[in-house]
Amino acid sequence: MTVFRKSFDLDTREHEQIVDITERVARVVAESGILAGICSVFAAHATAAVTINENADPNIGVDFLAALGKMVRDHDGWLHDRVDDNAAAHVKSALVGPSETIPIEGGRLALGTWQNVFFCEFDGPRKGRRVVVTVLG
Amino acid sequence: MTVFRKSFDLDTREHEQIVDITERVARVVAESGILAGICSVFAAHATAAVTINENADPNIGVDFLAALGKMVRDHDGWLHDRVDDNAAAHVKSALVGPSETIPIEGGRLALGTWQNVFFCEFDGPRKGRRVVVTVLG
Amino acid sequence: MTVFRKSFDLDTREHEQIVDITERVARVVAESGILAGICSVFAAHATAAVTINENADPNIGVDFLAALGKMVRDHDGWLHDRVDDNAAAHVKSALVGPSETIPIEGGRLALGTWQNVFFCEFDGPRKGRRVVVTVLG
Repeated sequence: MTVFRKSFDLDTREHEQIVDITERVARVVAESGILAGICSVFAAHATAAVTINENADPNIGVDFLAALGKMVRDHDGWLHDRVDDNAAAHVKSALVGPSETIPIEGGRLALGTWQNVFFCEFDGPRKGRRVVVTVLG
Repeated sequence: MTVFRKSFDLDTREHEQIVDITERVARVVAESGILAGICSVFAAHATAAVTINENADPNIGVDFLAALGKMVRDHDGWLHDRVDDNAAAHVKSALVGPSETIPIEGGRLALGTWQNVFFCEFDGPRKGRRVVVTVLG
Repeated sequence: MTVFRKSFDLDTREHEQIVDITERVARVVAESGILAGICSVFAAHATAAVTINENADPNIGVDFLAALGKMVRDHDGWLHDRVDDNAAAHVKSALVGPSETIPIEGGRLALGTWQNVFFCEFDGPRKGRRVVVTVLG
């Protein structure tokens, strides 16, 4: 059994943005040489998150951000807005969560046909958002 | 340390449905022979998810689907509905997430007394929904 | 590769409460002696959850609970309320989820600067809430 870890950084350009990181995660898995196991993807930020969904139609990411915007309204009396005007971003981050775990099969991410890995930016634009990929197998 | 992976398929009968997969996941853990470690449960679909909750009262699953239906309304101006009329299912899938990780103790899932593993169907009925169970330990 | 597992219990004092468990999780990681790998944190309850966010301003936890309260209203026609008057707590638990997976780097939790690990109580106060920490690496 081996552990292989690699981080990568990304810059976001919008206040809220879905970034498809499937290729970057897949490259770490390939580099690890691990054939069977799991891959943990972790966003090291309290105003970002990781999730998995379809990107064949990039509007799914747009709809996801819009839906979160309806669930968690900006400046809806949040106490943290008095300190740093981004409470809604923190709430969305905690709700979606920073980690996803994906099986590895035959040296590749065992994602379904319509699954891509998304980094979710809720408080951008920001430089140097860090994603930690850990492969065990 | 060993890796043991096994997938199983299930058919859903309703448009939205909670399927209790605890027994099927537990069988994979027993078959793995692994005594201590973790078990990753992964739904390989972009309109489904995995979560954990009580099934002693099956109405909890009904309430969960109803609550998601209030949070993410059908046809609420979603862009993806123009392509494939199931945007709300994708949003719910991304929100709940496809993966859960459960500890293994004494060769069994270390779930709490009231915890069951749920496959969540958001765009059924469908045949051949795949769940990937990976046991490491 | 080693597996190290340790559980700890905590008591909650409020009906809904965020408990910062970062220190307790970090102590398990230190005790494990594992230098590289992953740490799985699991709440063994169907009316609680684990998430990760900032605690420099504890009001973020307050805002998170308030936001969940807007998304999932108490006694909003939930069927489980007829059995046990805590359906909203179950829905929040299933939504946030009981598990998070955190990378281990240099023998420590590789959390971002603003990330803390939160135990979320949705149906307290309760004694003996159990958190299972499993370290693999």
